Amino acid sequence: MYRNHTCGELRLSDAGKEVTLAGWVQRTRKMGGMTFVDLRDRYGITQLVFNEAVNAELNERANRLGREFVIQVKGTVNERSNKNKNLPTGEVEIVVSELNVLNASLTPPFTIEDDTDGGDDLRMKYRYLDIRRAAVRKNLELRHRMTMEVRHYLDGKGFLEIETPMLIGSTPEGARDFVVPSRMNPGQFYALPQSPQTLKQLLMVAGMDRYFQIVKCFRDEDLRADRQPEFTQIDCEMSFVEQEDIIELFEGMAKHLFKVIRGVEFTEPFQRMTWADAMKYYGSDKPDLRFGMKFVELMDILKGYGFGVFDNAAYIGGICAEGAATYTRKQLDALTEYVKKPQIGAKGMVYARVEADGNVKSSVDKFYSQEVLQKMKEAFGARPGDLILILSGDDVMKTRKQLCELRLKVAEELGLRDKNKFACLWVVDFPMFEWSEEEGRLMAMHHPFTHPKDEDVPLLDTNPEAVRADAYDMVINGIEVGGGSIRIHDQALQAKMFEILGFTPERAQAQFGFLMNAFKFGAPPHGGLAYGLDRWVSIFAGLDSIRDCIAFPKNNSGRDVMLDAPAPLDQSQLDELQLALDLKEK
Amino acid sequence: MYRNHTCGELRLSDAGKEVTLAGWVQRTRKMGGMTFVDLRDRYGITQLVFNEAVNAELNERANRLGREFVIQVKGTVNERSNKNKNLPTGEVEIVVSELNVLNASLTPPFTIEDDTDGGDDLRMKYRYLDIRRAAVRKNLELRHRMTMEVRHYLDGKGFLEIETPMLIGSTPEGARDFVVPSRMNPGQFYALPQSPQTLKQLLMVAGMDRYFQIVKCFRDEDLRADRQPEFTQIDCEMSFVEQEDIIELFEGMAKHLFKVIRGVEFTEPFQRMTWADAMKYYGSDKPDLRFGMKFVELMDILKGYGFGVFDNAAYIGGICAEGAATYTRKQLDALTEYVKKPQIGAKGMVYARVEADGNVKSSVDKFYSQEVLQKMKEAFGARPGDLILILSGDDVMKTRKQLCELRLKVAEELGLRDKNKFACLWVVDFPMFEWSEEEGRLMAMHHPFTHPKDEDVPLLDTNPEAVRADAYDMVINGIEVGGGSIRIHDQALQAKMFEILGFTPERAQAQFGFLMNAFKFGAPPHGGLAYGLDRWVSIFAGLDSIRDCIAFPKNNSGRDVMLDAPAPLDQSQLDELQLALDLKEK
Repeated sequence: MYRNHTCGELRLSDAGKEVTLAGWVQRTRKMGGMTFVDLRDRYGITQLVFNEAVNAELNERANRLGREFVIQVKGTVNERSNKNKNLPTGEVEIVVSELNVLNASLTPPFTIEDDTDGGDDLRMKYRYLDIRRAAVRKNLELRHRMTMEVRHYLDGKGFLEIETPMLIGSTPEGARDFVVPSRMNPGQFYALPQSPQTLKQLLMVAGMDRYFQIVKCFRDEDLRADRQPEFTQIDCEMSFVEQEDIIELFEGMAKHLFKVIRGVEFTEPFQRMTWADAMKYYGSDKPDLRFGMKFVELMDILKGYGFGVFDNAAYIGGICAEGAATYTRKQLDALTEYVKKPQIGAKGMVYARVEADGNVKSSVDKFYSQEVLQKMKEAFGARPGDLILILSGDDVMKTRKQLCELRLKVAEELGLRDKNKFACLWVVDFPMFEWSEEEGRLMAMHHPFTHPKDEDVPLLDTNPEAVRADAYDMVINGIEVGGGSIRIHDQALQAKMFEILGFTPERAQAQFGFLMNAFKFGAPPHGGLAYGLDRWVSIFAGLDSIRDCIAFPKNNSGRDVMLDAPAPLDQSQLDELQLALDLKEK
Repeated sequence: MYRNHTCGELRLSDAGKEVTLAGWVQRTRKMGGMTFVDLRDRYGITQLVFNEAVNAELNERANRLGREFVIQVKGTVNERSNKNKNLPTGEVEIVVSELNVLNASLTPPFTIEDDTDGGDDLRMKYRYLDIRRAAVRKNLELRHRMTMEVRHYLDGKGFLEIETPMLIGSTPEGARDFVVPSRMNPGQFYALPQSPQTLKQLLMVAGMDRYFQIVKCFRDEDLRADRQPEFTQIDCEMSFVEQEDIIELFEGMAKHLFKVIRGVEFTEPFQRMTWADAMKYYGSDKPDLRFGMKFVELMDILKGYGFGVFDNAAYIGGICAEGAATYTRKQLDALTEYVKKPQIGAKGMVYARVEADGNVKSSVDKFYSQEVLQKMKEAFGARPGDLILILSGDDVMKTRKQLCELRLKVAEELGLRDKNKFACLWVVDFPMFEWSEEEGRLMAMHHPFTHPKDEDVPLLDTNPEAVRADAYDMVINGIEVGGGSIRIHDQALQAKMFEILGFTPERAQAQFGFLMNAFKFGAPPHGGLAYGLDRWVSIFAGLDSIRDCIAFPKNNSGRDVMLDAPAPLDQSQLDELQLALDLKEK
């Protein structure tokens, strides 16, 4: 061992001890005849001290140490005269008697500090240096702690972690698969799993009763801001359960994690909200409930007063931002511009301030009497100093989604999206299907294995779009961290589901025959859910992106810029795989 | 919840309780007016009883239950008159008052019993039924328990589990990669990792200090008996350590696992053996030390007596099988045939029995006097009743390997390879390189990142084949369960290593530039090891093959016969990937 202590553990009580430390040179400072070196490792920083008067040669060598040199030192723990209250080791220093340079270092391309001068691209190229920064390291430590706790909790509940294969079959339904050519079976391909969904259902058929796995999943999608082609799922499935059992068990897990990881104790059950209410009151299936501003519908109140925009609208609704009447005209114009951006698509925004005397001043005063505006005020329960923002449109759902964006934007501006505050809820009763304009058919909102609500089963034949599913999402701070459903375990119902989704029996058999056949041999009732680990860690870590809780993430083109992957293959590799490139002109 | 108890937990103390159980019908028996049903779940089997006299309709329905039907029952726990001592639940039965069939089942294609009538192929096709058998289920439970304990142990030692990417770059050095075409980067490919070797070294450069990961790895090799294209590794790396530190820590982990999983306590340190000794005394770098039969070299004793085979041999050596003088001529002939098989390749075998009076009777008595044979007997320390078996050849290493096969075969026949006995050792001081006839160059025996022994570094220039490495394998019962090394952390030494391995500087840079560049920025001394989880679990489970400790394994053609993967892709998928098949005629 190159050390007998880490750089994070020595305290005043160790004074006088002879110790050996090893680590990286964070910085050196020369003060008169003394040289101070901050030595860093994963566990902390310890100050080393060299004295020219005591050992000139050693001091000289210390002066020549560059940033990020790897060194080993022997010395004596000494009480510091100038204590640093910000460091756990700040009361001591090591008076060095021996110095070994274990490895030199070029000057790193950015500073190894929490507040680094390195841009994103540079940091990713030299990710091995970036991870040395405490800000990144802590995320990986948190991630480890979370997965340990997840395993501990689930093991305690009788779950078995069972590895499912990574090389499986491709199913064109759903997102795009990454595929892997098989050399031993020329012309054939494996696919990497988008999730172990069907495999975990087979494990339920296999009687494993309670399964989980923390597992890599793969989706070949065009990468949006916060997507990675490979991501990690906490994947769970249980037999002989109903929706309530699953919600209870996994709410327990969430509470456990909040308690042990973040020190936050939830004593009340998480809020539950139907999908319909979530859309109605927040315009989103993952409402952020850290703050209010619940939608208020204003059709009854504001229609029919000659304001054409409202009179012709299919939906008029608004939010009330508490104490935001101080918003300037400029700020309000900026909000209007924001909702009019093509990504959001609103036509405009109406606002109204509640003044100190209780009167309402709106941007559409010429159409509305104070009496009507007061009725509106009451609908919001608005008080003096509040700001009311209203959107309208000819498509109810679209307008609600626009209002959702406005709500989040205003909350952001008002500092209501506090990363140290957590609002958890279950969104339940999702619709079974959604209509896809692109495909011209119904698509499964969750996936084709989701069980419809028993009471809605008759609607499958008459009005499938009205069928609700035994499906549920866990939402934290407006982010869907997990979701799942009770699954179909009856082969006839599963076959019907594929029929509604537009599968011919042949195609259903070709793609999911292995599962439907398994259902013929005694499939138990079962259900489960999956959490996105990357996202959950990033919430706990207070990160805006999942990237910094992943050791070696890929960029938006799916590249690992550190490894420079993907890359062309040797021709001999292609030959062995019996493949040829067929590159299209751009 | 469909149940309030499992099928494994009810005891006599529960008598009188009203319970609800759910599970699979293992078997039904009709005895007079009574029907008995064994109900099975993951946790055990509980007997249900139906009485025609009490409820004829219910009894009738119970009689119609088929094997593997999924049912839910309500009833009362009752003391059995006819107790079954072999079942933990064998003192009770459930007097059923309500029966719900949750799902029917076709008759399974093989019996769901430990001793099934299903052949391998059928079991793999219906793996979800195969896993219902306790014999398979227990292996998956053991695997879960082992990974939980590994994580617990390593977490306690300050290791962080850090996920490394699955989509990395291809490195033609080493085994063949599975590759993944990148749609977003046409003409380019990712590779699936054969191991996270370079990534974990980068994590050490990143200062993560102690890393582990239980992780899927991939090798596109022609599959021999006990290989899988995807397999699981317990992958570990530590900084600021020497070989001894790693051996100590991971020997501790092995002892912990033996204790908590198998109830075997090792109080002594594991044996250590140099690679040279392992080859000399056992003809293998992974000797099975559950039994003796150490090789004895006989060149000095048996050469020069006119027996041409021995007189011309470069190696003569043998083993002594205790108490095996009773081997018949037929058995000895069979052994001779065994070693002469092409896979083993010996020319013949010489044997000698030690008779009750101490005289030695050999198959080559006409060349050797009793005096010489007595000297040989002494060399083995053989006693009356022992059998001596001797091989010779003109290639020392090859003959030793043949003798190794003979030793294992005889041990097998003598019942010395007891699956409940465990012999662990470390094989150390591996050679750095081995000569590859195929490639016509030196190859790294472990991998190109292995650190040579400090004292052997000067030999790199003069006699690289004599260089030993800081590399070590952990061997249990003749199976290599893990191995590792101290790594090179010096870029100049790493560059020299690539040079000896025949890399041009350009090729080394193209393939491993990311690592060599990282070494320029303060790489700490580091080392690690990796265990093959599948193999280790199979040893603990007493399995001959790794297949039955994997939920969904692949066959020898790399196929998952349950999923029927791999399979051809849709043309549209190939088009999106800008790939074409280029199938060769067979």
